[in-house]
Amino acid sequence: MRKILALLLAAGSAFAADEVLAHVSAHADRFGAISRQIWETPELGFHETKSSPLLQRELRANGFDVESGVAGMPTAFTASYGSGKPVIVILGEFDALPGLSQKDVATQDPVTPGAPGHACGHNLLGSASALAAVAIKEEIAAHGLKGTIRYYGTPAEEGGGGKIYMIHAGLFKDVDAVLAWHPGDSNNVSLHSSLANNGGKFRFYGIASHAAAAPEKGRSALDGAMIMLNAVEFLREHVPQETRIHYIITNGGSAANIVPAFAEVSLIARNPDADVLNGVWERIMKCAQAGALASETRMEFEQGTNYANVLPNDTLSEVLGRAMQKAGGYEYTPEERKFADEMQKTLGAPAHRPGPETVKVEKTEGSGPASTDAGDVSWVVPSAQFTTATFVPGVGAHTWQAAACAGSSIGRKGMVVAARTLALAGVELLENPAEVEAAKQTFAKRLDGRHWTTRIAADSKPPLDYAMK
Amino acid sequence: MRKILALLLAAGSAFAADEVLAHVSAHADRFGAISRQIWETPELGFHETKSSPLLQRELRANGFDVESGVAGMPTAFTASYGSGKPVIVILGEFDALPGLSQKDVATQDPVTPGAPGHACGHNLLGSASALAAVAIKEEIAAHGLKGTIRYYGTPAEEGGGGKIYMIHAGLFKDVDAVLAWHPGDSNNVSLHSSLANNGGKFRFYGIASHAAAAPEKGRSALDGAMIMLNAVEFLREHVPQETRIHYIITNGGSAANIVPAFAEVSLIARNPDADVLNGVWERIMKCAQAGALASETRMEFEQGTNYANVLPNDTLSEVLGRAMQKAGGYEYTPEERKFADEMQKTLGAPAHRPGPETVKVEKTEGSGPASTDAGDVSWVVPSAQFTTATFVPGVGAHTWQAAACAGSSIGRKGMVVAARTLALAGVELLENPAEVEAAKQTFAKRLDGRHWTTRIAADSKPPLDYAMK
Amino acid sequence: MRKILALLLAAGSAFAADEVLAHVSAHADRFGAISRQIWETPELGFHETKSSPLLQRELRANGFDVESGVAGMPTAFTASYGSGKPVIVILGEFDALPGLSQKDVATQDPVTPGAPGHACGHNLLGSASALAAVAIKEEIAAHGLKGTIRYYGTPAEEGGGGKIYMIHAGLFKDVDAVLAWHPGDSNNVSLHSSLANNGGKFRFYGIASHAAAAPEKGRSALDGAMIMLNAVEFLREHVPQETRIHYIITNGGSAANIVPAFAEVSLIARNPDADVLNGVWERIMKCAQAGALASETRMEFEQGTNYANVLPNDTLSEVLGRAMQKAGGYEYTPEERKFADEMQKTLGAPAHRPGPETVKVEKTEGSGPASTDAGDVSWVVPSAQFTTATFVPGVGAHTWQAAACAGSSIGRKGMVVAARTLALAGVELLENPAEVEAAKQTFAKRLDGRHWTTRIAADSKPPLDYAMK
Amino acid sequence: MRKILALLLAAGSAFAADEVLAHVSAHADRFGAISRQIWETPELGFHETKSSPLLQRELRANGFDVESGVAGMPTAFTASYGSGKPVIVILGEFDALPGLSQKDVATQDPVTPGAPGHACGHNLLGSASALAAVAIKEEIAAHGLKGTIRYYGTPAEEGGGGKIYMIHAGLFKDVDAVLAWHPGDSNNVSLHSSLANNGGKFRFYGIASHAAAAPEKGRSALDGAMIMLNAVEFLREHVPQETRIHYIITNGGSAANIVPAFAEVSLIARNPDADVLNGVWERIMKCAQAGALASETRMEFEQGTNYANVLPNDTLSEVLGRAMQKAGGYEYTPEERKFADEMQKTLGAPAHRPGPETVKVEKTEGSGPASTDAGDVSWVVPSAQFTTATFVPGVGAHTWQAAACAGSSIGRKGMVVAARTLALAGVELLENPAEVEAAKQTFAKRLDGRHWTTRIAADSKPPLDYAMK
Repeated sequence: MRKILALLLAAGSAFAADEVLAHVSAHADRFGAISRQIWETPELGFHETKSSPLLQRELRANGFDVESGVAGMPTAFTASYGSGKPVIVILGEFDALPGLSQKDVATQDPVTPGAPGHACGHNLLGSASALAAVAIKEEIAAHGLKGTIRYYGTPAEEGGGGKIYMIHAGLFKDVDAVLAWHPGDSNNVSLHSSLANNGGKFRFYGIASHAAAAPEKGRSALDGAMIMLNAVEFLREHVPQETRIHYIITNGGSAANIVPAFAEVSLIARNPDADVLNGVWERIMKCAQAGALASETRMEFEQGTNYANVLPNDTLSEVLGRAMQKAGGYEYTPEERKFADEMQKTLGAPAHRPGPETVKVEKTEGSGPASTDAGDVSWVVPSAQFTTATFVPGVGAHTWQAAACAGSSIGRKGMVVAARTLALAGVELLENPAEVEAAKQTFAKRLDGRHWTTRIAADSKPPLDYAMK
Repeated sequence: MRKILALLLAAGSAFAADEVLAHVSAHADRFGAISRQIWETPELGFHETKSSPLLQRELRANGFDVESGVAGMPTAFTASYGSGKPVIVILGEFDALPGLSQKDVATQDPVTPGAPGHACGHNLLGSASALAAVAIKEEIAAHGLKGTIRYYGTPAEEGGGGKIYMIHAGLFKDVDAVLAWHPGDSNNVSLHSSLANNGGKFRFYGIASHAAAAPEKGRSALDGAMIMLNAVEFLREHVPQETRIHYIITNGGSAANIVPAFAEVSLIARNPDADVLNGVWERIMKCAQAGALASETRMEFEQGTNYANVLPNDTLSEVLGRAMQKAGGYEYTPEERKFADEMQKTLGAPAHRPGPETVKVEKTEGSGPASTDAGDVSWVVPSAQFTTATFVPGVGAHTWQAAACAGSSIGRKGMVVAARTLALAGVELLENPAEVEAAKQTFAKRLDGRHWTTRIAADSKPPLDYAMK
Repeated sequence: MRKILALLLAAGSAFAADEVLAHVSAHADRFGAISRQIWETPELGFHETKSSPLLQRELRANGFDVESGVAGMPTAFTASYGSGKPVIVILGEFDALPGLSQKDVATQDPVTPGAPGHACGHNLLGSASALAAVAIKEEIAAHGLKGTIRYYGTPAEEGGGGKIYMIHAGLFKDVDAVLAWHPGDSNNVSLHSSLANNGGKFRFYGIASHAAAAPEKGRSALDGAMIMLNAVEFLREHVPQETRIHYIITNGGSAANIVPAFAEVSLIARNPDADVLNGVWERIMKCAQAGALASETRMEFEQGTNYANVLPNDTLSEVLGRAMQKAGGYEYTPEERKFADEMQKTLGAPAHRPGPETVKVEKTEGSGPASTDAGDVSWVVPSAQFTTATFVPGVGAHTWQAAACAGSSIGRKGMVVAARTLALAGVELLENPAEVEAAKQTFAKRLDGRHWTTRIAADSKPPLDYAMK
Repeated sequence: MRKILALLLAAGSAFAADEVLAHVSAHADRFGAISRQIWETPELGFHETKSSPLLQRELRANGFDVESGVAGMPTAFTASYGSGKPVIVILGEFDALPGLSQKDVATQDPVTPGAPGHACGHNLLGSASALAAVAIKEEIAAHGLKGTIRYYGTPAEEGGGGKIYMIHAGLFKDVDAVLAWHPGDSNNVSLHSSLANNGGKFRFYGIASHAAAAPEKGRSALDGAMIMLNAVEFLREHVPQETRIHYIITNGGSAANIVPAFAEVSLIARNPDADVLNGVWERIMKCAQAGALASETRMEFEQGTNYANVLPNDTLSEVLGRAMQKAGGYEYTPEERKFADEMQKTLGAPAHRPGPETVKVEKTEGSGPASTDAGDVSWVVPSAQFTTATFVPGVGAHTWQAAACAGSSIGRKGMVVAARTLALAGVELLENPAEVEAAKQTFAKRLDGRHWTTRIAADSKPPLDYAMK
């Protein structure tokens, strides 16, 4: 019955839909240029000192009320338009990745070798979300729609967890629904989740000694790390197979002829289910303790990234699904087709993936391989996400190919699909508050009595220099 | 001054020496035959049910008062002759080693493949000591010497630690001096020690699970053992270099498709210094605990062998040194020479070792690579030990070559050197109680305030089936 | 069109179906008693010297032409009735599992601790298949049906791979379709597959040395095994997550004071895809070679079990699905219900599993956690398999619970469901050779140009003593 | 006979001895100041751009013929005076150690935290050797002694191996004897050797992959390193116990969420015997190859430091022994005593070590725990070395305490003892060429047919930036 009503309402708002899509079109070039500008100055998490102000300026210029430097993060901001309920938030991100500098060409060719690059397409993410917010604002303004549209500028998604500090700061308390998207290689709405993750630094402290003259007087911190990591390897067999545990040794001693007094491991674990992850994490901690115990060293753990898995919202996914079907995909120009073909040749295996003209709306569940702090938001407010074809089919995030696409016209076309979908969904939620209520009910159902938890203490400071370590 | 006195006394007892050597000669064939009989029926520790009675019968027939089954061990016994102080004990052993069955030939050729063999020459050890005891008894009887000569039949030297239970049973309380010897490849008296050792079984208990269907539900006991042992390997760099740690995995799981619920490691550690060993042992225990911690299994330790290092006694070593110089070495017959030459070809490297005609008396200290429960006795009563050339030069204990020699005429000749040395030293101690007193003083000096400790609880039962496990 | 035809034919043969089910009923008690008799004398693989002859006698008594001791395996046999095409084979197994002795009660209670038990229900498997063969034979005899029904007595499914030697011996060359079943906890027909597996013994040969006296002269075979296994643990992260690798150490040295000259690992790897498994296996071999290289030991591999994954056959699964729906499930008596309730309490978690009255026919694919040599047959001849509710819902194979059920009336009821399903399917195939042809086409489609390969050499002898090692 | 002659000759040159000691005294303050100047500007190996020219200037000013930048090393130089045979070389070093900056006080207090410091006292080493060379030159000049005295300025002893490149460049070809010394905590001449060492970088190259999304596509270079190092740990048990193997992980991956494509280990091994070390090294290489094999990565080794053990020269040691006995020790002032007492409190255990007034001359052999490229020189030319009490008794090299002493008056007093000893010995060798000939004979005897080998290729370039990596 609710579905039938929704369809009727959707039909009823067809005019609104056309209008808001026109607003998107009107601003598309402008925000496309902004996305390109951000792409050209890739900035690491919490250091988005050009990208964040650029988006803030544009939103302010479009009548949004902008508050910057929120939640203790200089590059975090909120932009708000309208008033009263419902409060709809669209999430924006704009941080880049280290070491993935790349030109907008189909061969690996960094702008500056070793420099950051937008290999996760957050230049598009932040810009499309802002474009949609502006289009919705214009629809609110034109028709006096009740409710509030907000854009949240969330820094440092790539490990810094800006959204978590925004939750802790209470910025999601009055929010009714959250819409988000992420660049991808296809236009897709589903109930897919992400991997909950947890990570940090394991530091071992031993006793230095001349490694040739008195090794028996030393207690090797590196031994502590090695014993821990060996134990972690044995753990792999005995955790659910979807679990991921990966690590590097960030400090393995200072001189080969000195028994290392210090060693450091950076380790991340993931699982589609946060509870399962917590169980695995306890066992990783035991491995670390065992490393210290057996090597007679001391171990300290510093909490790093901790992202929840995405809690899908069936109602909002249906809204987004209808919106994307209305929004539609796009076609490549001959030049774009050539670029895509060339790029696909650089991928190992053939990509049997849908093209940009395809829109895929499905109710499949399961977890992708990535983690995001949008997951944490999804446990606090009803949220839904989707991807659009900003990357050539087969291209994965965190690759030079993704960085190249993010600066190309293909990226900008995918970005417009995202903005159209968000704008349509946002307007639908504002026009039909019943959808927002339904989303709250499916939210409660998915929560099933659970509630959001995080290892990031509510009173902790954002790790503003995490990307520089 | 004391030395000069000793020399005078030694000279004065020259007639006694000649007499006691004559007693040894008179019984040498008989005890040689006994050594061969024991060699032909090699019995593992605590199961010397033929060897022990054979020696008991012979000692009883020679007038000794024999008490069998002492200290809770069916094959342990004491044989005593004479009365009053001093009480001199000669140690006898008669257990064989598993898997070292060998004929008395110069090529590897087991009597029964996989069966035990006398590869440590304890058939000679027990027989020569008895021969010496009988010779001393005859000297006591002939001259009405004051004091007591005893033979202690000590089972299970190869891991069972029979002597430790005899100490616990109080059998060394009234003893004034202990003389002992061990088969070797040269005639040698020195202040050498042995390695203190400690060992036992580390048992890990986990949770079985189908290794393909539900590995995540299993907790692998074998993982516990592997993590422990990996940690032990890392420990090696950080212990004094003379330390030895060696292990086997005695149970590594029951079926490859089941997560092992049980695993067992047998591990021994050694160091010339028992205190250092105790420190190392604590760290091995931490490795074991770390293995259990990291694998979420339970670890139990069962105490096994724990032998003290030998505490040398300078006085008794001087007595033995003089005795051996009087006793002299022996010459090979042409057949024995041929046997020795052939056997030496089976050894990897050339043996620049003294021949059986050589007697080497030195005051060098240091530790050999072996461990013995005679070490424990040496912390309780002044004790000294020596070796004689029962094995072809270059042959080490616990080899098929040693087992072959132990059954040959070479072994029996070396055995007679040992009996002559023990008999001479025993008579000297009985005739010169001042030597015994001096031995007590050097004993106290070497102890330096320390006292014997053992991990074998005073009220524990001898592990009568240890060799069968 | 083919489906409609099949439905018509199925309807047309309704009388045949009723008849063959009557034949099953007539013999059900007799074969139930046989299943119990096999259950009472559980025999390990290749040693089914009572179970195999028992089934042979019964089939011979029912007019089958029996050839025993085929393919070099004393307990393998073929039993044949009828003539000409199509040739339909029903697979029978009858081997037990080590260490899983169990009474037919709902608490863990072995008949003889440590002895074998029918924890995989092969007593039911072999008996139900024979019951079905006899029922089909009677239908052939009654109506002069064209074609041949055969029962293949396949020994040692639990690791010995009897079916592989029967393939090598050419016994499947003239076969047109294979029907099989396996005891389970529900009545289920699907397109599920099994895990391809491969396994064997990795033997390391080093140089023994006294571990305290000359560890530097030893080359530890156990080190070789440990280094290999450590490397295997590191491998886990970098293989597809569905892969399973599990191992035990079957020989970890003979004495803690000897550097191990020999060590042995038994390892199995699995993956739903045989090609992927082959790739993983190459890398496991590299780990083993690395163990030998780093420890200066020699490694030898002895091929063990190598089973292919099951290649589902869509046509035959449809035939079996219709047959099982016709065959139907069964109800528990109050006593059986009580038994089931008590047993379920012994299972860790609640089992939300369908009961024995339910029949589930589905086209889902995917791989179960088990491996079987019926997988190899499925790459050579069109084959399909199903399970019936011989075990209480929630009970997995290779548990004492499964062994208890296999001897109970519940097991026998499930066995009759299996016989009814097989009998119905067998008669349908004989009556409608077009189904057999269709099965061949779907077989070719699934093969997709690939063909059966195995690491078990065509000229190798069956490892008749594998279960005794 | 030779000894008696030597004593006579030594007595005969008593006047020369007094003279040369007077020359040392005359220049002692000047070179003491130079040592302090070098101490104040500590420079790492091959970067001694102030220290080397300072010494060169002083030697040139004293009439030496200086050739700088020899053997491809900007800071290496030779300084020569006199002509003809014998050619006596005194070795000088002047490089500092990283991270050991320290003021000349008795508490740990760096001048610049993290900066280099003269914790091996090479500021004293280079200055005392130059002081001795100048004193010998004056004796040559005064008496027209035949022969040549040279000072070799050898950079980068701490890992760069400057002397090896000077050997390769032929600079030792015409040299008859080499005298050297090293700062220590006592005045000592012996036949002690050093540890031969070998080291380098093991680099592993794998395939990067997203560690959560596609770990199975990655080949972890860190796994390669870990498997290698685990294998190295297992190796420890099976090498001679005097062996040392120590390592750090210099690169353990770049991001925890990326399978590491690169990892690097820096490893050093040592043994008193170069041949034994070579055998051990081969096995370490196998461990590294095993790491690559098992992880499917590629391993490359870059040769680093390779120093030979010191080959003692009995003749030259006797010359130095007599010289040091003549040179004598020194006394602390009350202030120096206070400094020494305070510093000894910072040492863990009490130092039962001889004071600076003691001179110890002995013929003991054995190996200290350090390694030096003077070892390589000792295999090419008869060489001998000694230590003087430049450090407070109990202070070891490579500590902040050593760095403090090296800048203090204690250091300068010890330096004068060294200069006196070298000067006396140098003059004796020039006056008595028969000693030089005798030294060549003992050299040949110690070589026993062996000759110098090194892993540093004759045509390789000095690793001028090794200390900066």
